[in-house]
Amino acid sequence: MENYQHILIAADFSEHSQQVINRAQEIAERYQAKLSICHIIEDFPIADFAYEPMISVDLDMRDAMLDSGKKHIADIAKKFDLPTANQWVEFGSPSLNIVSLANDNKVDLIVVGSHGRHGIKLLLGSTANGVLHHALCDVLAVRLTEQ
Amino acid sequence: MENYQHILIAADFSEHSQQVINRAQEIAERYQAKLSICHIIEDFPIADFAYEPMISVDLDMRDAMLDSGKKHIADIAKKFDLPTANQWVEFGSPSLNIVSLANDNKVDLIVVGSHGRHGIKLLLGSTANGVLHHALCDVLAVRLTEQ
Repeated sequence: MENYQHILIAADFSEHSQQVINRAQEIAERYQAKLSICHIIEDFPIADFAYEPMISVDLDMRDAMLDSGKKHIADIAKKFDLPTANQWVEFGSPSLNIVSLANDNKVDLIVVGSHGRHGIKLLLGSTANGVLHHALCDVLAVRLTEQ
Repeated sequence: MENYQHILIAADFSEHSQQVINRAQEIAERYQAKLSICHIIEDFPIADFAYEPMISVDLDMRDAMLDSGKKHIADIAKKFDLPTANQWVEFGSPSLNIVSLANDNKVDLIVVGSHGRHGIKLLLGSTANGVLHHALCDVLAVRLTEQ
């Protein structure tokens, strides 16, 4: 059994995400593993051409969301000295994109919070659930607690 | 964030269970954490009194299954110097009993294989799924691979 070598944090910017980041960082230290972080912004459909004026608004909104996500991730990454190459922010389906990033980058452990952004306690978040069902590597679900 | 102090292996005696045990043991070593192991035998209803002759057969079968499970766990536990107090074999609903044992014994990490005993690849096992949905602590789902 190989030691963990590349650990991917699935960050959601909720008030609890620091717990996920801390745990992942702690494990990465113990294993001397590479640490990466990703944030997937749930995709939304761009309005139909029939509503052409809306398209630019949508595109502006997407750009703004992407910029905001990248800035947020960069702030977190700075604390852990993560190079830009180890940070991913993209639009998509959170669980599928996380799994896909993990596969493409030989991640052997994904660390994810165990409930969603607006999660109710004891309810597994849909992202965590999707990652757990589809991942080809180990997944650590960090139980998020009220602080 | 506290270090892991008590790690519980949910063992299912499948041909892949050694991967789960190895990973749990490795993490326990890195964290200097206490390691425990449990095996829950899926409960089945005892036949109705109308079939009285069947009851003793059922009870004999339960005893035999319990003995066999305990022997199997003891064999595994011996390899890791786990005292009898850190081994649990019981009848019940696997995921609920695992979560309940974890709660009662202040377990902070449950390690479970990511597919069931006769699991199809990429399908999360029902035990892993149940544990992930109900656990009050962190859960590591170890992706089981063909060897």
